[in-house]
Amino acid sequence: MPKKIRLGILGGGGDSLIGVLHRVASHINDNYQITGAVFNPNYEDNVAFAKEIDIPLDRVYKDFDTLVEEEMKLPEDERIQVCSVLTPNFLHFPMAKKLLDNGFHVICEKPMTTTLEEAKILLEAQQKSGTVFALTHTYTGYPMVRQMREMIKAGALGRIHKVDARYYQGWINAIIHDKEKRNSVWRLDPKKAGISSCMGDIGVHAFNMVEYTTGLKVKSVLCDFNYLYDDNQMDVDGTVLIRMGDHVKGVIRGSQVATGEENGLAIRIYGEKGAFVWEQENPNFLYKMSDTEPVQVYKPGHAYNTELSLDGTKLPPGHPEGIFDSMANIYLGAARAIRGEKYNDGEFPTIIDGVRGMDFILSTVESNKNGSTWVNLED
Amino acid sequence: MPKKIRLGILGGGGDSLIGVLHRVASHINDNYQITGAVFNPNYEDNVAFAKEIDIPLDRVYKDFDTLVEEEMKLPEDERIQVCSVLTPNFLHFPMAKKLLDNGFHVICEKPMTTTLEEAKILLEAQQKSGTVFALTHTYTGYPMVRQMREMIKAGALGRIHKVDARYYQGWINAIIHDKEKRNSVWRLDPKKAGISSCMGDIGVHAFNMVEYTTGLKVKSVLCDFNYLYDDNQMDVDGTVLIRMGDHVKGVIRGSQVATGEENGLAIRIYGEKGAFVWEQENPNFLYKMSDTEPVQVYKPGHAYNTELSLDGTKLPPGHPEGIFDSMANIYLGAARAIRGEKYNDGEFPTIIDGVRGMDFILSTVESNKNGSTWVNLED
Amino acid sequence: MPKKIRLGILGGGGDSLIGVLHRVASHINDNYQITGAVFNPNYEDNVAFAKEIDIPLDRVYKDFDTLVEEEMKLPEDERIQVCSVLTPNFLHFPMAKKLLDNGFHVICEKPMTTTLEEAKILLEAQQKSGTVFALTHTYTGYPMVRQMREMIKAGALGRIHKVDARYYQGWINAIIHDKEKRNSVWRLDPKKAGISSCMGDIGVHAFNMVEYTTGLKVKSVLCDFNYLYDDNQMDVDGTVLIRMGDHVKGVIRGSQVATGEENGLAIRIYGEKGAFVWEQENPNFLYKMSDTEPVQVYKPGHAYNTELSLDGTKLPPGHPEGIFDSMANIYLGAARAIRGEKYNDGEFPTIIDGVRGMDFILSTVESNKNGSTWVNLED
Amino acid sequence: MPKKIRLGILGGGGDSLIGVLHRVASHINDNYQITGAVFNPNYEDNVAFAKEIDIPLDRVYKDFDTLVEEEMKLPEDERIQVCSVLTPNFLHFPMAKKLLDNGFHVICEKPMTTTLEEAKILLEAQQKSGTVFALTHTYTGYPMVRQMREMIKAGALGRIHKVDARYYQGWINAIIHDKEKRNSVWRLDPKKAGISSCMGDIGVHAFNMVEYTTGLKVKSVLCDFNYLYDDNQMDVDGTVLIRMGDHVKGVIRGSQVATGEENGLAIRIYGEKGAFVWEQENPNFLYKMSDTEPVQVYKPGHAYNTELSLDGTKLPPGHPEGIFDSMANIYLGAARAIRGEKYNDGEFPTIIDGVRGMDFILSTVESNKNGSTWVNLED
Repeated sequence: MPKKIRLGILGGGGDSLIGVLHRVASHINDNYQITGAVFNPNYEDNVAFAKEIDIPLDRVYKDFDTLVEEEMKLPEDERIQVCSVLTPNFLHFPMAKKLLDNGFHVICEKPMTTTLEEAKILLEAQQKSGTVFALTHTYTGYPMVRQMREMIKAGALGRIHKVDARYYQGWINAIIHDKEKRNSVWRLDPKKAGISSCMGDIGVHAFNMVEYTTGLKVKSVLCDFNYLYDDNQMDVDGTVLIRMGDHVKGVIRGSQVATGEENGLAIRIYGEKGAFVWEQENPNFLYKMSDTEPVQVYKPGHAYNTELSLDGTKLPPGHPEGIFDSMANIYLGAARAIRGEKYNDGEFPTIIDGVRGMDFILSTVESNKNGSTWVNLED
Repeated sequence: MPKKIRLGILGGGGDSLIGVLHRVASHINDNYQITGAVFNPNYEDNVAFAKEIDIPLDRVYKDFDTLVEEEMKLPEDERIQVCSVLTPNFLHFPMAKKLLDNGFHVICEKPMTTTLEEAKILLEAQQKSGTVFALTHTYTGYPMVRQMREMIKAGALGRIHKVDARYYQGWINAIIHDKEKRNSVWRLDPKKAGISSCMGDIGVHAFNMVEYTTGLKVKSVLCDFNYLYDDNQMDVDGTVLIRMGDHVKGVIRGSQVATGEENGLAIRIYGEKGAFVWEQENPNFLYKMSDTEPVQVYKPGHAYNTELSLDGTKLPPGHPEGIFDSMANIYLGAARAIRGEKYNDGEFPTIIDGVRGMDFILSTVESNKNGSTWVNLED
Repeated sequence: MPKKIRLGILGGGGDSLIGVLHRVASHINDNYQITGAVFNPNYEDNVAFAKEIDIPLDRVYKDFDTLVEEEMKLPEDERIQVCSVLTPNFLHFPMAKKLLDNGFHVICEKPMTTTLEEAKILLEAQQKSGTVFALTHTYTGYPMVRQMREMIKAGALGRIHKVDARYYQGWINAIIHDKEKRNSVWRLDPKKAGISSCMGDIGVHAFNMVEYTTGLKVKSVLCDFNYLYDDNQMDVDGTVLIRMGDHVKGVIRGSQVATGEENGLAIRIYGEKGAFVWEQENPNFLYKMSDTEPVQVYKPGHAYNTELSLDGTKLPPGHPEGIFDSMANIYLGAARAIRGEKYNDGEFPTIIDGVRGMDFILSTVESNKNGSTWVNLED
Repeated sequence: MPKKIRLGILGGGGDSLIGVLHRVASHINDNYQITGAVFNPNYEDNVAFAKEIDIPLDRVYKDFDTLVEEEMKLPEDERIQVCSVLTPNFLHFPMAKKLLDNGFHVICEKPMTTTLEEAKILLEAQQKSGTVFALTHTYTGYPMVRQMREMIKAGALGRIHKVDARYYQGWINAIIHDKEKRNSVWRLDPKKAGISSCMGDIGVHAFNMVEYTTGLKVKSVLCDFNYLYDDNQMDVDGTVLIRMGDHVKGVIRGSQVATGEENGLAIRIYGEKGAFVWEQENPNFLYKMSDTEPVQVYKPGHAYNTELSLDGTKLPPGHPEGIFDSMANIYLGAARAIRGEKYNDGEFPTIIDGVRGMDFILSTVESNKNGSTWVNLED
């Protein structure tokens, strides 16, 4: 019987946007019940928030370690089964590691870790624990992204020879053009924000989208960052040439200073027989092109869509589902995996995606530092 | 303290789409807890569905009357506070009536009733009970629809002189063109489906959108239906000329045989100083036009948006929210009203919208029957 | 040998926009040579303009009658073969009549005449003369409009059951909202501008588009005009219900007060098997929809297009051709007809289209005057 | 008095597309008269074509040298004033050189020459002759491209920090994927087609668009080409990182194997205060974005447009002009220059653009050959 999965939440309290996104997503398909949480490092805030959203207080813990400790004392059929890790980036690794080591399933925000080494350690831990690890590259949950993946897998484009992805935002403009702000916010302080801003935050989403949809691996990258000001130490814009195999090339463009752009993730994939064009801000329109036929516009919920795509659509065609629904699809896939039910490859990004993402980020940074040289990713 | 509102669900069991929509919407802002239900007229199906979505079984009742009877025995602070009425159309009236008479709040699917008389009786009952009645014209919950309403109220378009709405779908094609099907499905049987198909199901949404956004009332209508076949008795297509005041005119176009259309609700509003264009299938793009300036494209979540619009957006610009979020906004407004909190006009459609909608449907039917004459709506 | 056709121009001098449009269109396919003209009623302006555009002055005549008289004296192989009539509307009839009576071919701007009677007289004259008469409903020259026509003729949509056309502009706003202007400009003075503004100027284009693309005839119309002010005597906005046969219905919407609209001609045609959507301001994108397949976007210049469509495209796909090219296509068809070469039905609108257009305009005016009654068009 | 300019045409005979484009463009604003020509190297074809388009035969010459020789014998006020050079690429240089040396004005197709050295020699010749040299980067003639240029010059975007251009086509797919074809067509034979296919044919257009609109110069490039097959020697796809100054960076993406793309030239320009987005296949829509205001959609022909933009629009808003009109605008600017009239910077691309274009093409080839290193363009 499909009792709801007991979900713990780490982070995401107060008016956290990522908190809303995960909470709603967990509800959407009636699979999860929030059972325990550490919403906030401050215990009072933590409890206040739990009250606000009406979560029973007895399993709202004072900190992460306590959560693990106390939950482990509970019988397995009462214990939290999976934790969503929504904390600041540097906490992803220690939390996920401990969770895996104690047999919890994990749903983790990206970037998975802050270094490639951590990512590999996590992978090892997960392989040992055998529990589920879902990385929330949210955009892979869109029905039309899944449609691309499945159609490409089935050969709709033939051999792929060119991939062009973009992730453009403009929100850092308000900070970067102000000398004082750009030298004080944590986001642009490498000591606090880590090795990369633009590539770490959004470039990696575009990278994941490229690999998720094409089924190909990026082999090497060459990168030129734009810091915009001499006194800025973090990449806020960059273009990455990519090579994915013999005569399979492409480009990933990322920017946080693309003025006026909101959340402009987009991809164009060109193959021998056809091409796909998709944009995140119009997620329910997928354009399939060929040299000889009219452009075709695929939309969700139709009988012509693939199984994986249809699985991610709840209403009939023409009823726009959005990013909450996309995230919900990832939670749905994770729920099946957690319950040991059958699920398909592609229902949620895995720890392998996390390792590759870290490799990508670090390689772009290295390439840029070297004056735009080719850097190979690990196999 | 914002304890979750106790919600009862009537109908919406099994793989009901409207059931999913309401259930998800009720969760989205952490305001409701499903406390009781009659998901299905068949008790076994009812219980099975409750188990499937993991709702406690003790308040899953065998029928609506039992639900009311048993809940009324409970102390007020345990009792269901509001019921969502998702049953077939002809049950809306008796259920809503009894709920209001017993002091429950009501969230009701449209069309509110099957006759104007019923609608008026319901209005009277609601005025007597003083409880909240929200009619789920879902589309009014979109942030960009609210943006239109507020900007028009603030005078952005000046005096309105022309309104042009459309609601085109194509799904009845699969039935109507098959002689046997069109003479057997309940949808096209006036005895079962009521007085109108196209106007009753979708035309009324367009009508509501016209009145919601402009703040004006439709005074009279003139209509020509298309039945498509001589042996079909239900309107599946129709165009309605509307008059909304001195020199304020327009048109509402509805069709269920608009081949290839999915859920094509759209509106164009022209005023002295400017105009709005909006389409439901791209709900996050609102076009504001004028004769002398570049077209402006409004999107949700920006500081330039109105309070009512921003209240309906959870994430920053560029993160597409959709129809579940739109419905959730209506649930959010209803939650505030149920709790006696401050809320703004426009947060949810009311019983008055329901009465007007019924008047509209009946008037179009009458106009068409009379060979396309002008029929006045009540004030 | 394809010597250029000797073209006379009537009207279109100075900075006349229609003058530029026809002059350029006549050049585009290397078929015409401007041989004579009366560009302007004022002889000095006439000559000055001829000099400005470098036309030989010896056949720039002082008035229309002189042009006919003098040209008739010339041997046939030197004489003007065809005249483009670009004068104010009320002059179309007398000029075209005299031209036909004297054996000239005619290319005429719309509206063809100012009354239905004139239109019929012209038809009779043309049938007698046997010369070519092309009416410049420019929009039928677009490759994608021709594509619709041909595909519909070939059965791509099956039986058509619904047509929805729109022609929205906003330019009269600047006049109509100013009491003095609206009571003084000739455009809104029925004595000078004729029986109809909105329907006569643009509604008739939409009507022609409906008949051109569907191959069906409008049988009856019902209309409601909006005059916007009590003291305005000319329709500046109107919606026309149309019936085109058993269970074939539709609507034509026209407005000159649709604020912010530029030249918004658009059509949606729904049939049993499919539908077309096309908009004049994006003329190179034609959307074909069905209930079961992805939307298809047709573009000009592809091998998949029909012969008539391809005939109207000069460059490979992706090189946008526009309204000058559209008009040029009509001139091209007329050239073939004038030379007695083979041409296809649909290459240019004919005098029959002109008669029907006048019938449409007058019928809408009558319907509106009668308080929105059904008025039949002649067969 | 504005007598028409005497135009000679070199190449462009038969069903040459470039021939149609130039011929129509030269007619559009009533400025040119085709006076002489060598349409075709074969004299019979040459004469046959002249007859077909009804050009007087007495100045249809047997070859280019004869044209120059004979025309030079004519009195200056009868002599061809300007020649349009539409011949295969390798002939551009010798023809343009001789024309300049003999005092003719020149309108030249791109690429201007086949080497940078030739380009510089031509520049020297032109500076000596002082005659007009217009290079037909057609796309700069679009009103909305001019609008970008002028608004950027006026500071609308503030300091530019990011430029992203694309020119994607798919037509070479039909050749490249066929082993025999790709090893036999002249297009992919470096001995016949020159140093570059993709960059030389279309990349250079994107490069010109970047410099034309921003007013900035590309300082250095880094490039990775995709040849698609080991036995193919010509670039058919490439991505070029560009640096345009301190912290001003960008990317130019070119492809002839972008399956399904027709003529996909597009540009995104991001500055401190705003951004522009424009696409050639929808040339009449220019998107201006900012971080705080609704997106604005500029269209041609409005009073809000700049003088240079309005100069390139013949009809009121909403009447789509296209690529013929765009080329006509370049001819219009050249006509003013040829007549010694006042004209504005930006009305047509010059020989300087040609020199820079050759530098760009050669630099990308060099960068790619070196394994993607930065290569500086000359100042």
